[in-house]
Amino acid sequence: MDTYTYRRDCPSRTVIEVLASKWALYVLAALRRYERPMRFNELRRVLDGITQKMLTQTLRALERDGLVRRSVYPTVPPSVEYALTPLGVEAGRLTAAIADWSMEHAREILRSREDFDARAAQSPAPLDA
Amino acid sequence: MDTYTYRRDCPSRTVIEVLASKWALYVLAALRRYERPMRFNELRRVLDGITQKMLTQTLRALERDGLVRRSVYPTVPPSVEYALTPLGVEAGRLTAAIADWSMEHAREILRSREDFDARAAQSPAPLDA
Repeated sequence: MDTYTYRRDCPSRTVIEVLASKWALYVLAALRRYERPMRFNELRRVLDGITQKMLTQTLRALERDGLVRRSVYPTVPPSVEYALTPLGVEAGRLTAAIADWSMEHAREILRSREDFDARAAQSPAPLDA
Repeated sequence: MDTYTYRRDCPSRTVIEVLASKWALYVLAALRRYERPMRFNELRRVLDGITQKMLTQTLRALERDGLVRRSVYPTVPPSVEYALTPLGVEAGRLTAAIADWSMEHAREILRSREDFDARAAQSPAPLDA
């Protein structure tokens, strides 16, 4: 039974926490979909709503984890490209599956939210535990 | 090409944002692993480090999305159980895959982080964009 405990000192926790960030999930899914290296500004266009700062931080975290490789080409101005590493391709497969599933079931889930909110408006929030 | 743009007004975005929360991911993965309804305090033990408040909020968000069903039994004191809905079983399959993958590759990723940090200590952070 202890096998299934998500212990706070398990190294996988810090790994999951990278993938469980909304923008990391999108960056990996986007690089996986396009199946080629992408430039910063291109990623920024694809990930509608991400700020420059968040994209910089996300790419840096993914590079640090060995999921994304950053290549600088000595053009003028220098061009920088981001690509998935083999490990990142695997992670991208998992996060793209989540993105696909979310798109497929978005309508159903939004309807569930409406129903829930309508019920909640009629009765007070339940006490938990 | 626009097909792969993650538009901020796409409903799937709000869905992804639920799954891309660390604790939602753990709760779904745990309920999926145990394959049976679980009580609040049991989930809290399994999800080492989660606060009562975070677990309450996470379960409520998952219930609102139709991924988790909350059942109250009229015992004294009332007992409350949480179980995956059929849609939650599917979401749990995806999040359990992420949890498994993270465990499998934790060592490799932690090593990558050490290398990255060692390199970063030797040279200044690169300018981005």
